[in-house]
Formats: sequence, structure tokens, C-alpha cells
Amino acid sequence: MAKEKKLVEAITSMDEDFAQWYTDVVKKAELIDYTSVKGCMVIKPAGYAIWENIQHELDRRFKETGVENVYLPMFIPESLLQKEKDHVEGFAPEVAWVTHGGLEPLQERLCVRPTSETLFCDFYANDVHSYRDLPKVYNQWCSVVRWEKTTRPFLRSREFLWQEGHTVHATAEEAQERTIQMLNVYADFCEEVLAIPVIKGRKTDKEKFSGAVATYTIESLMHDGKALQSGTSHYFGDLFSKAFEIQFTDKDNTLKYPHGTSWGMTTRMIGAIIMVHGDNSGLVLPPRIAPTQVMVIPVRQNVEGVLEKAAEVRDTLKAAGIRVKLDDTEKSPGWKFSEQEMRGIPLRIELGPKDIEAGKAVIVRRDTREKTIVTLGELAETVKALLDTMQKEMLERARAHRDAHTYQATELDEFKKIADEKPGFIKAMWCGCQECEDALKEEAGVTSRCMPFEQEQLSDTCIYCGKPAKHLVYWGKAY
Amino acid sequence: MAKEKKLVEAITSMDEDFAQWYTDVVKKAELIDYTSVKGCMVIKPAGYAIWENIQHELDRRFKETGVENVYLPMFIPESLLQKEKDHVEGFAPEVAWVTHGGLEPLQERLCVRPTSETLFCDFYANDVHSYRDLPKVYNQWCSVVRWEKTTRPFLRSREFLWQEGHTVHATAEEAQERTIQMLNVYADFCEEVLAIPVIKGRKTDKEKFSGAVATYTIESLMHDGKALQSGTSHYFGDLFSKAFEIQFTDKDNTLKYPHGTSWGMTTRMIGAIIMVHGDNSGLVLPPRIAPTQVMVIPVRQNVEGVLEKAAEVRDTLKAAGIRVKLDDTEKSPGWKFSEQEMRGIPLRIELGPKDIEAGKAVIVRRDTREKTIVTLGELAETVKALLDTMQKEMLERARAHRDAHTYQATELDEFKKIADEKPGFIKAMWCGCQECEDALKEEAGVTSRCMPFEQEQLSDTCIYCGKPAKHLVYWGKAY
Repeated sequence: MAKEKKLVEAITSMDEDFAQWYTDVVKKAELIDYTSVKGCMVIKPAGYAIWENIQHELDRRFKETGVENVYLPMFIPESLLQKEKDHVEGFAPEVAWVTHGGLEPLQERLCVRPTSETLFCDFYANDVHSYRDLPKVYNQWCSVVRWEKTTRPFLRSREFLWQEGHTVHATAEEAQERTIQMLNVYADFCEEVLAIPVIKGRKTDKEKFSGAVATYTIESLMHDGKALQSGTSHYFGDLFSKAFEIQFTDKDNTLKYPHGTSWGMTTRMIGAIIMVHGDNSGLVLPPRIAPTQVMVIPVRQNVEGVLEKAAEVRDTLKAAGIRVKLDDTEKSPGWKFSEQEMRGIPLRIELGPKDIEAGKAVIVRRDTREKTIVTLGELAETVKALLDTMQKEMLERARAHRDAHTYQATELDEFKKIADEKPGFIKAMWCGCQECEDALKEEAGVTSRCMPFEQEQLSDTCIYCGKPAKHLVYWGKAY
Repeated sequence: MAKEKKLVEAITSMDEDFAQWYTDVVKKAELIDYTSVKGCMVIKPAGYAIWENIQHELDRRFKETGVENVYLPMFIPESLLQKEKDHVEGFAPEVAWVTHGGLEPLQERLCVRPTSETLFCDFYANDVHSYRDLPKVYNQWCSVVRWEKTTRPFLRSREFLWQEGHTVHATAEEAQERTIQMLNVYADFCEEVLAIPVIKGRKTDKEKFSGAVATYTIESLMHDGKALQSGTSHYFGDLFSKAFEIQFTDKDNTLKYPHGTSWGMTTRMIGAIIMVHGDNSGLVLPPRIAPTQVMVIPVRQNVEGVLEKAAEVRDTLKAAGIRVKLDDTEKSPGWKFSEQEMRGIPLRIELGPKDIEAGKAVIVRRDTREKTIVTLGELAETVKALLDTMQKEMLERARAHRDAHTYQATELDEFKKIADEKPGFIKAMWCGCQECEDALKEEAGVTSRCMPFEQEQLSDTCIYCGKPAKHLVYWGKAY
């Protein structure tokens, strides 16, 4: 009862207050719960099942490219964290420190890993000696900790789940190829599985990872016009190898430093799914990532034969490889519909005595509410086709939304006006100086999201200083 | 070169120094590496792939019983850890404490979870209100930290990987059933997948989990006659519910405390696989858990057609659903054989020009070295049959070894003599008093492993004090 009361309170409209709408959805779709541990959350079954599907899909794609999984310690001794100068400067202010083990103070503080470049390098320094030991293409699935001041479920929390790949290669070229290869894996995954279109590009020096030579990113646009950095892949050159003295004897019998990469994707992608696809009835899950793709909801289930037929429908769909559940609880059908909608289950099948008599069922799409009446004999086939169509159309709709909210500017006033009035990406030229980047942040409230791989020459001059332009940049307000 | 040199140094004989043999195997089979973080290890690809298979098999079995996966924070505020008296006494001396977040000291210390009963209870206190919310049958896969003084790879390390299930139920009966159900899942998994026979039983009060009403265990016997606690399942009654004020309104409209359980299995099972099945050539992996089940090793691979045929054999086996690799490196066949043996790959297929001419191949079992010559047309079928046979015989052999090292005693002198001279389990009667348990530890160096579900009446009196016996107990020296 208490539970029913909670759900029927409508969630906040996304147009009225997007941030509150987001918070309502993560709670009412039962994805997370807050905890007694400030800034950390419980990922509940409905949320964790999405993460399991993300893991499964990404892990399969990784392994196809030769990635092997490993597990490294969650603690980093302070002296190890300090070995690479830029890296420690970037991370030291936001790590959690362990100072006591049991009843004793530790001789050296340990931080809880915020990322594991230093541990992987320490490991590779022991494990890599010859060109025969290369490449190492390792990944781990784990949790990391960054002591954020303000947090939001999935988007920014003190502890989050991710995968982090760390590789070393005999040559710079091979490492650079791996950096881009993994960025492409992320981009394909986002578009094909999450139905989220992304812009691939390179971060400016200001926005790159602490310790990287180059950071590549995929950037996506949320429904409210804010950007989300959705996956990054870093090229380190031999900077970390030198800092950690990783050396190998090459074929020509000389000692060389290998070239490194790292790349990661996190539980924040669950936040992206919510903010790209959700609506005022709750979550909308792309079929390929949905833990449950179809909910069978009986109508007038007390009538003889209805529940039996509904179970039969479920079994038929299950046998066809569809992830399906039957809601045979005592709640009213209307209540079950709104629960299925809140949880973002892609399709529901309504089945009542009249449908059964006619040998038919009604299928309702979560995204468009479109109804399809289908004979029971063709159900599995139609459900599969609808899931495919829905997946495809969700990506198309997200792309159309992204494109409709991507602007361009060649004059500073125009740029500021767009930044002020129209949430979205702004494409504009940039001279390459951090001063202009800082000024645009200060004056227009936007950051550089990336220098896209697909460059255009919108004008010949930097949007801020008017000096010769070097790059097209996507600018935006970001999560 | 450096690598080849390392492997050909023979590993220590297990009969000469079992502990050193174990350390050699974990290193030379490339399962782990030591790290700069004292007491923590790197789990390398060959080790982690075993853990992935364990996860996959266990997770599937869990989900068949209705378990749902979640993720809870890795930190526990000190005040939360202290809510259940016995629990905090058991764990506080061995936890790692986080005292600083970023540059600031924390207002309250956080420990890194040694186990998550307190967090799950805190979560359930928020999430459980009505009988409709029950049962909650949640599990998480994560790492935990216990600040051990002496550590050994897989068996005892400061951080280890595990799953921990935590459930709450409306009635004591249902919780007790779940406790035993999960113990049975563990026992079946060990026997069917890891080929490790186990004794199911209950821990004495002295050996039970801190905060539990009852702890159930599966105990296995290693090759050296020492016992290993291989999985535990705890029944909490309503102790934790009361400490954390978890209450629900039952059907009769009264407020009640739910009854809880928890159960876990860890990466120490990789240690069990090594110590139950390994031999003086290295690791021996049961086929069902082996990441690679078959290694195809070409002989005289520079002869035209050999590598092509070997690849064809690999593809045929792969198509038949067998996990197979081809070793087409430049090493000698003899070297490849010893690598395959060190890594415990269940079968190798030797294939040279003469075999190909005769349309045959040689299959060698890792455990018995038994050779089978088979025509190429029957290869997949024969490999499958051999893997099944090997799996079955490994369990039988482990059971025979366990039974041959299980003794019984009805007199104290006899008991001490066995404990002193014959490593293994000792079955003996016990009165139920902790004093006798303590004395047997002191005088014979053994601990009670469990009171087995299959009770026998070896005599009417306690092996130590001679008072009336209450339970048959398995005693032993344990890891």
C-alpha cells in the first residue's frame, strides 16, 4: 500500500525541473537508493541489471579485440601515486586515504584507487622485459573512489563502478591505434546498444586526463541540452613508462620504453540512458540493454483461463529468446501499466478474455505508445520486429534531437546568445590557446567538449580572440 | 629467453615442501603476481579467467533460485559497524580505516567493508515496510578487505574477491531454508564444477561467524591433508533486524522483525583447485572450470601443411563448443607441452606430419598422461568424452584421497597420535563444550571443522572429557 501510494504521485515534469525529474526517475524506477554513506548509493536490482548488460556487451566487444581481464589491488601507496607528476596533481586532492589497518597506524598512507595507471605501471615494470612480453592489453572491472563535493546518482558519486583498460605496446603507432580502436568500441557500443549517438573527438589540453599526452572522448547530448562525457581513451606515449621505469629489450637488442594507453567507461552511462531516452512517465530502455524487454500484463486476470494463457504467451516469447516477464500480481492492470512504463520496459502485452477469444493480443510500445494488435500465432515474430524497430527509432530520435540542438557560431556575440538561450552543443572555431577556452568558460559558461574527428572550417578565426583558427570545437555545458 | 629460463627450473616437489610447491605453482602457472601493496596481489589473466568461470557458474545457479544482484558502497561508517555487538567485536580489529577524504579529515571514520551485513541491514531498514516487500534475496560481487597479518595468494590476502548474499524473510523457517539452500548450491557447485568433494555441516559456536545464530559450512580436504573452509552460509534469526530496526507489517497487521541470512564464496576457491588437483608438473584444472580446455600443439610445424591442419583442428573443436587454443609460437613442442602442463590445461592434442598423413592425432590427458590416438573425423566427439571422463575421475580421485585421509578416534591418545602423524580429517565425538574444543586445539593442534549433517554415533562419550557426547565433529588442521 505504502509502495502504491508512492508511485502514483506523479514524477516531476522534465520540462518544469529536469534535475528533479531525473532524481524522481532514478528513485521511482527503483534504480538506486541513498545510503548512510554520504555521496555513495545503493544500485538496486533494476539498476544493477542494466549494468550487468552493459558489462556483458562491452566485455564481449573487448575480448574480440584481444583484451584480457585481470584484477589489481584497490589500494595505492602514496609513494606510488606520486611517481608521475601531472597524474598526482590531478588526483591527490580527491582521493580517500587509508591511514590505519586494524588497530595500528600504517607506515605509509594508502589511497583508495581513483584510477589505476600507477598500479598497472608498477605491475608492468615487473612483468615486461622483452618485446615478446608485448603488447599487454589488460582490463579490470572494479569500483573506484573520488572524493567529490557534490554528487548525483550515476553521474557523479564518491564511489562508482567502471572498467579500466591499461595497455603497453612496443611502438607509439601501435599504442595510438589501440587508443582509437577502444574509442571506436565505445562509440559503436553507445550507438548500437544504448541508442545514444556520440561525437568522437579529442580533448583540449585543458580538459585532458592528468598525465596523458592525448585524451580522446565520446560526447553525447542529454535531453536538456547538456553534454555528457561518455567514455574516454588516453594515449600516454612513454611518459608513464619513464616515470615507472618500464623497459623492454627490443628485437634489435636495445632497451626501450613501451608506449601506453588507458580507457574507461562507467555506471554514468545508466544516467545517460535515463537522460537521453526518458520521458514524463519515467524510464525508457532501449531493447538491447533492457533487462526485461516485454512485460505480459493480463487484463481481468480472475476470469478463468486468462492467467494460463498469459503464462503460455510468456513461455512462447521466452522460448524465442526474448527477455520477458509476466506480472500476475494482484494489482490493477492500470497500475501495472504505469509501473511497466516507469521502469522503462520496452513493450507490454495486454491480454484479456476478449483478446483470448479472438486469438489476439495488444502490444504497446513504451516510447511511442503505438498499439499493435496481433494474432497469437504471430506474436513472437512481431515482438522481435517491434523491438528491432524501437531500438532503431530510439537512436534516430536521439540523433534528431542532438542535431536539432547543435548550433554553430562564427561571432562571439552570437556564441554567447546561443550559450545563454539555447541549451545544446555549439560548434565554433578555436585558436588553440587555453586563455580563450578560459574566457569562454567565464563569459559564456561553456567548456570545450572536444575537437571532433570530423573537422569543418566554419570560419578562419578563433571565436574569442579573432586570431587564426586551428580547430573546430564542440562547446557546451556539461554534467 | 628470460621467461623460458624461469619455467624450466623445476617447481619444488609437493612431497618435499607443499607450501613452496603451492607458491611456485601460483607464480609459474601465471595466476598471480605480488605487488607493492603489502598483502595484496595482482590476479593475472590465467587466474582471473578461472574466477570469471566461477562467477558465471555460481551466478547462474544463484539466479535460478531467485537471487538478484545489487551493489552497495565499499565504505561503512564506524557508527554503523558498531550497531551489532558480536559483529563489531569480530571485525573491528581487522579492518582498514579511511580517515581523510581529499585534503580534509573526515568527521567520522569509514572502514573498507570486510563484509556487508551492516550496510545491507541499513538498506533493508529503509526498503522493507510490508510483508509484500519480502523476501529480499540480494547478492553482490565485489572485493572486501581484512587486514591480515600473514597472507598467502588466494588463501588469505588483505583484499580478496567474493560474492556476498544477504537476505531477509518474513519467517524464521523461510530464512533457515534459504540458508541451507545456498549451502547446497555451494556444495553442488564444488562437486560438479570444481570436482572438489565437500563435507556439509554446521560450525560450532566457537567457529561461527560474528553475529550469526548458526553458521553452516562446506569443508574440503587439500592434497596435504589440511582442511579448507570453502563456503559458508549464516542464519541470523532476527538479531541483525533488531539491531538495525528492520520491521515490517505482516498480513495480520502486526509489526515484526524479519529473519536474515548471508552466504559467501571467495577467490580462495582458486587456491582449493590448485591444492586438491595440482601435481608436480603444476596446475591441473577440472575441464568445466578451465578457461582453455584443449591446447593444440603442432609437432614439426615448419613442415608444410602442419600449421594449417592444426588450425583446422582448432576450428573444428571450437565449432563443437570446446574452449580450445592453438599454440603456434616458435617454441619447441617439448617446451609447449610443459607450459600446457604447468597451466593445467586439461587436454593437449599433438599433431605432426606423420599423424596428418595417417589422418590421426594424439590426445594426452593432463591428469593421467593417458594417450588416445584418434582419427581426425572422430576428434570432437572423443575430446568431449575425454573431458567428461576427466571431470568425473578428478572428483572420484579427490574423494578417494579425502576418504583415505579421513580417520576416526574414540580415545584421546589415539586422537592425538592421528593428529600428530596423519594429516587429514579426524572424526570424533564431542560434548558440546568450548573448553574441550580449546583443549584439543592446545593439545592436538586441531580445530573443529564442522558438525556434519550426516551424524554417526562413534561412541557415547566426548573424546576429550568423557562426558556424554552430543555431536560427531570433523576435526583438522586448516588453512
